[in-house]
Amino acid sequence: MRSPEPRQLAQSAAEFMERLRARSPRVHCITNTVAQNFTANVLLAAGCIPSMTSSAEEIGSFVAGSNALLVNLGTLDPERRQATDIAVATAAARGLPWVLDPVFVDRSAGRGDFARRLLTGRPSVVRLNQAEFAALAGAAVDRTSAAEFARAHDCVVAISGKADLVSDGARVMQIANGHAFMSQVTAMGCAGSALVAACLAVADDAFTASVVALLLLGVAGEVAAERAKGPGTFAANILDAIYALDGSTLVARARIT
Amino acid sequence: MRSPEPRQLAQSAAEFMERLRARSPRVHCITNTVAQNFTANVLLAAGCIPSMTSSAEEIGSFVAGSNALLVNLGTLDPERRQATDIAVATAAARGLPWVLDPVFVDRSAGRGDFARRLLTGRPSVVRLNQAEFAALAGAAVDRTSAAEFARAHDCVVAISGKADLVSDGARVMQIANGHAFMSQVTAMGCAGSALVAACLAVADDAFTASVVALLLLGVAGEVAAERAKGPGTFAANILDAIYALDGSTLVARARIT
Amino acid sequence: MRSPEPRQLAQSAAEFMERLRARSPRVHCITNTVAQNFTANVLLAAGCIPSMTSSAEEIGSFVAGSNALLVNLGTLDPERRQATDIAVATAAARGLPWVLDPVFVDRSAGRGDFARRLLTGRPSVVRLNQAEFAALAGAAVDRTSAAEFARAHDCVVAISGKADLVSDGARVMQIANGHAFMSQVTAMGCAGSALVAACLAVADDAFTASVVALLLLGVAGEVAAERAKGPGTFAANILDAIYALDGSTLVARARIT
Repeated sequence: MRSPEPRQLAQSAAEFMERLRARSPRVHCITNTVAQNFTANVLLAAGCIPSMTSSAEEIGSFVAGSNALLVNLGTLDPERRQATDIAVATAAARGLPWVLDPVFVDRSAGRGDFARRLLTGRPSVVRLNQAEFAALAGAAVDRTSAAEFARAHDCVVAISGKADLVSDGARVMQIANGHAFMSQVTAMGCAGSALVAACLAVADDAFTASVVALLLLGVAGEVAAERAKGPGTFAANILDAIYALDGSTLVARARIT
Repeated sequence: MRSPEPRQLAQSAAEFMERLRARSPRVHCITNTVAQNFTANVLLAAGCIPSMTSSAEEIGSFVAGSNALLVNLGTLDPERRQATDIAVATAAARGLPWVLDPVFVDRSAGRGDFARRLLTGRPSVVRLNQAEFAALAGAAVDRTSAAEFARAHDCVVAISGKADLVSDGARVMQIANGHAFMSQVTAMGCAGSALVAACLAVADDAFTASVVALLLLGVAGEVAAERAKGPGTFAANILDAIYALDGSTLVARARIT
Repeated sequence: MRSPEPRQLAQSAAEFMERLRARSPRVHCITNTVAQNFTANVLLAAGCIPSMTSSAEEIGSFVAGSNALLVNLGTLDPERRQATDIAVATAAARGLPWVLDPVFVDRSAGRGDFARRLLTGRPSVVRLNQAEFAALAGAAVDRTSAAEFARAHDCVVAISGKADLVSDGARVMQIANGHAFMSQVTAMGCAGSALVAACLAVADDAFTASVVALLLLGVAGEVAAERAKGPGTFAANILDAIYALDGSTLVARARIT
């Protein structure tokens, strides 16, 4: 499959924004308690309806009523692990897209084992940072290792960094948008994964959805940085920027290659 | 009982603000992990002292030392359910007012069962949104269904929406203040429930306390929206607005009918 | 040991800021769910890498890979208590500095018992507010009771209040920086404890690290208050101020005696 044109992807991003605002997809997030509030606000700013329960008794109902699922390993207590298994099974049974974000998989062996087991459950997208990719893939990040990882696990991989890299095994795209403040606000990566889930909910193609989500967040980050005096005011401003993002800004600023 | 005059309620709201700042009531909140931080900041901005533990071993001491209790079902794990039973029993034994916020009761059957059981424990106020009311009451929201719900459960019901509706079964009031950004910040409804609990702590009458709390939040939202560029800066500005709210602004802006 | 000169401490604070930014210490925080997000953002703004898991199975790996540990009792569920024991044992085995923040120890007897047991595990620093100190020390806060507490528990004690007091038993310092808004933002004290842990990670001396951390936060609070219109915009601005804090501002504003 030939990679789509960068300009075409930037225009797709504008269409995705409109779809999110028009359809208000429900995105269920199993995510860590550090990230929950900011993640919910990012999803609301983009026009989605977030939910966050990780109670094993309820998660089946919540996922069944959602349009996409995010599984973030940041808070990995026994109840969340049990809820994750139920959530992933529900998503599979209903054909819902889901995103795996193996937070800090480089910091604990048990987390690595759990992440590897989840990978066999066929996430639509794995979104992670460079250290996490290196720990999980056993290879440094480049276009080749990204494509190999995607082929090996039959998923899209989206690796965030100074430039983000997205591959579905056949196609590879780099998104060079964003701002240094993004790494100084906690949960920015987690929120990026939630945006990927949101875009999956209104997409035909997981590769395009992933590129678009990271582009939206990166461009919003650039807009926010121009209004912010530091990482605190930046965190508020990136929500404003996501809320107000328009197609011409996306097309003008997109740095996709 | 005749409904109080709208203007009188707006003046009451100004008095409530003063009482909260002067008495600094302790409000214990069993609330979801998404909402905890924003809820605590709303209570602090209003002059109250929040506490948030949901450990079953400690909750009795915390509630016994508080002036009001909020029970929000947003994070419904087994420990929180157990803590809720202890908290409600402690509130009942001490005659403390408490608020039930049955978050997402429309999304899971088990949550509905738990909420219905809590309703039999006589909350002072049930605060919820229109979808949650419809799920719990089995009826669409209007002045009649609100009053019936309040009579059936011997409580005040406060339904938030584009316009909020409050009833104690005999009286019904509508508060038309607020701003669209309020539904784009997570935990705004949860924080509204916490403000109801705060007002109950300094009130003789649960109906007045509920109207006042929703009026305070709605007017603060209008003031904040004038300073905000989107939902992110709005969330910070509504805390500033609650902190600085004065009687003349409340009386001038109140749209109670 | 003679107390260092106040001016020398303000200059030390500037050096600590540089060390945090250059070395990016990893600070593991067992902290309450209300405080997690703000605490992580304070640590990131100061140049550190926060982690927050409290899963008993993982905490050993996380602490072993960290440069300092914070134990905050704000969310005291059984799993966090178990994780705390593992974390403290790991810190002791590796010679890592750790901070105990016995949040709300004045509100529950069980919390007092747990805090007293942790005190026997030799924290480097105990950071708490005046009510918590009174409950734990059985004495009102003054220079004498602070020094006695530090000697009795062979630790540094850092008591926050209108003016902060730090003692290691021999030396006592008062830091009179800060702003009233700091007590109207939830988790400000918890974040202060996290900054103490961060400074311990790059310090030789726990007393100096504690004075410096509270000075950094107090001066950042003053800078932020000049830009804020209330506690909401203050919370964002204090993160900006920590991020941008420079040596000349610290020396010019420090009120240490």
